Amino acid sequence: MTKIKATNITWHEGHVSRDEREGLLKQKGVTIWFTGLSGSGKSTFAYTAEHALVQRGHLAYVLDGDNIRHGLNKNLGFSAEDREENIRRIGEVAKLFADTGVITMTSFISPYVKDRDIVRKLHEAASLPFVEIFVDTPIAVCEERDPKGLYKKARAGEIKGFTGIDDPYEAPPKPELTISAEKTTPQEGALAVIEYLESKGLLPTLAE
Amino acid sequence: MTKIKATNITWHEGHVSRDEREGLLKQKGVTIWFTGLSGSGKSTFAYTAEHALVQRGHLAYVLDGDNIRHGLNKNLGFSAEDREENIRRIGEVAKLFADTGVITMTSFISPYVKDRDIVRKLHEAASLPFVEIFVDTPIAVCEERDPKGLYKKARAGEIKGFTGIDDPYEAPPKPELTISAEKTTPQEGALAVIEYLESKGLLPTLAE
Repeated sequence: MTKIKATNITWHEGHVSRDEREGLLKQKGVTIWFTGLSGSGKSTFAYTAEHALVQRGHLAYVLDGDNIRHGLNKNLGFSAEDREENIRRIGEVAKLFADTGVITMTSFISPYVKDRDIVRKLHEAASLPFVEIFVDTPIAVCEERDPKGLYKKARAGEIKGFTGIDDPYEAPPKPELTISAEKTTPQEGALAVIEYLESKGLLPTLAE
Repeated sequence: MTKIKATNITWHEGHVSRDEREGLLKQKGVTIWFTGLSGSGKSTFAYTAEHALVQRGHLAYVLDGDNIRHGLNKNLGFSAEDREENIRRIGEVAKLFADTGVITMTSFISPYVKDRDIVRKLHEAASLPFVEIFVDTPIAVCEERDPKGLYKKARAGEIKGFTGIDDPYEAPPKPELTISAEKTTPQEGALAVIEYLESKGLLPTLAE
């Protein structure tokens, strides 16, 4: 190690450890994976949690269709192969974010157990916490909400292979949390996320 | 906006702005793109800068072959098409990191002007700063260093299409910074990066 007086920096070789970044941020890097049907409320829960976390001084970021499908994964379609690659890439990016110390939330239908389990194992292999949240809003409610008009198109046959209509949604057998837009307000959902992170020591509890 | 008394959180709709995260971190999100030959010292400069930044209390992260080639881009080879897709994906991920407010450094040979310019434009379109650093170490020095023994293999014909040997390296016509492992120590290089960020208002200057 060399000291350069002008800047008072101690020079190190090699990578900064995750611990150092987490110490700086006073939080643990984690991937919080929201899964559920289209219109189930995944993004609303994720963005509400993001706001609450940032307001508490924590660095949180949401990966969703808006910033992934038009960017990193814009060269992927909706074939079985492309759906798998879509989730694989999102999982890898979430892992990098979590390694940076960010409270990373992903909001994708991610309908297949197999693909989600690959992402979980990827995190476990890197000793990174992975929190799967099942947004278990009944399909009738999702279809009633239909914020993007997609169920209407799927019912009219204009979209093929739509999850819940003519493509399966595989519910997580053992999610860390289950919430539902039918029973949980966005605020209650965000609080449930924060309380979960606190209970696992991933977030410091607020001083009274 | 709703107040929930128990947690004292003001609830918002929609996305947290980049400004809010940058305010939290007391820094600006930026992508610092190191480009240069194999063995030119890109990663050493990037990791030294990362250490210096984290020691100053700033969140920095390096994307390089270690965490990208074995993860996100493990399904890519070295064909012209795959090299282009490699840089495209890295550019998209760097953009997401910068949008989170992270001082993001990428360390890849990235030999083609065209591919690097696509990444630059991607950042400009999102009003995110992009700093291209040309690590201009002469090939004779890189080959002498040959930290991974790759030049030896390329000269022996065991690796085809090796940048600088039988594949071109296109130097940046207008990089924001130029450094060289021949003339610049890792510490001097890291300081040059920090001073550049300070000069552009991307990093607060240290109190005397």
